Amino acid sequence: MNENNGIFYGIGVGTGDPEYLTLKAVRLIQQADVIAYLKSDKGVSIARDIASEWIKEQQQIIILMPYKTNRDAANKAYDTAENKISGYLQQGLSVAFICEGDPLFFGSYIYLHQRLSQHYHCKIVPGISSINAATALAQIPLTQQNETLAVVTSRNSDEEILSVLDNHSSVVIMKAGIARPRLLALIKQSKRLENTCYVQRAGQKGEVVIHDVSQLIGKGDYFSLLVVR
Amino acid sequence: MNENNGIFYGIGVGTGDPEYLTLKAVRLIQQADVIAYLKSDKGVSIARDIASEWIKEQQQIIILMPYKTNRDAANKAYDTAENKISGYLQQGLSVAFICEGDPLFFGSYIYLHQRLSQHYHCKIVPGISSINAATALAQIPLTQQNETLAVVTSRNSDEEILSVLDNHSSVVIMKAGIARPRLLALIKQSKRLENTCYVQRAGQKGEVVIHDVSQLIGKGDYFSLLVVR
Repeated sequence: MNENNGIFYGIGVGTGDPEYLTLKAVRLIQQADVIAYLKSDKGVSIARDIASEWIKEQQQIIILMPYKTNRDAANKAYDTAENKISGYLQQGLSVAFICEGDPLFFGSYIYLHQRLSQHYHCKIVPGISSINAATALAQIPLTQQNETLAVVTSRNSDEEILSVLDNHSSVVIMKAGIARPRLLALIKQSKRLENTCYVQRAGQKGEVVIHDVSQLIGKGDYFSLLVVR
Repeated sequence: MNENNGIFYGIGVGTGDPEYLTLKAVRLIQQADVIAYLKSDKGVSIARDIASEWIKEQQQIIILMPYKTNRDAANKAYDTAENKISGYLQQGLSVAFICEGDPLFFGSYIYLHQRLSQHYHCKIVPGISSINAATALAQIPLTQQNETLAVVTSRNSDEEILSVLDNHSSVVIMKAGIARPRLLALIKQSKRLENTCYVQRAGQKGEVVIHDVSQLIGKGDYFSLLVVR
């Protein structure tokens, strides 16, 4: 690797509350020459909003991200971002990509790391993940002693979700809102509905905790999860 | 609940790097009337060390914790702590229990929450967990898309560990060092040794990342984990 190139930082900024930023994230965001972040086609950048207090004079790379289920458009957006970020790194400038939650836990940073880490020095700063934010808000002990935890998403099959519900003392289902009726039916089938909690947008405005999930009707938000204890 | 009582805070302080503290943790530690933390019978308090820069004038509750496999002594220590903390809360003072990692993810805070949350208002601040710190240090993407994650500990049986290795794209085994030869044999049996990484004391002095685990001999540290991808 060329030692004159800048360092690429992957920085977790947590789930929404600007106070969930770590001291390290704040310092590195302030010191970075360039800040990069995703922006949806609706003009929303959650990561930018979370860290806005610390973004002043730095140059910015806005990565326009179409939120579609088809991955082609997303891959193209990451390819474009790779080129832009490389350009700055080759000038010896440091680039900090800010990422909701934790960068390596379902984080968008992963796609850039895969493209850039072979060519440039990368440093990663962990962030408060949605699991930790949600359980803190709902005050649910997640795991202790010899309990086991499984984390799945609403993208997994019925069979996969039923299997983890049968085999783990704690189960978290990510991105739960968009498939809520289906997921609650699976949890009911596993006889664990009474020990299930729904959390939406933990640490963000309009955060929601529902301890009695039997009252939930229809779909919910994308940024949400079910915790089964 | 008595509204004149103080609030009990469970505050995650991360895994060791003082910069892994969140802005919220720093603010609430500074504002608290009383700081409570565990101290081992060898005189060590990791949480206290992590947060030491922010502990000045606050009163302190030191909870002496014998680290034995038998839970009786630990339960007794938590009972004593419950009484001390209650005393301060009943005077209307706020008490912040600082806890390594995340309070609700294998966190010592859970034992105090179970004792105090029925009687006092509790607020919980999530912290950087050992999983997020370890994967950031080792630069291993943990989960993306429809991958699933299982978290077990070295306390789980061979059968339980083999089962998650067979069924999940990502597996984290906590407290791995103390049972490392056994765990590596199980991972080898599952033919996943080449995709396994060992991380010890992520974010602490003397942190270790071993990407080629086939070279590891004997046991390692308690504060350690294996990540299988």
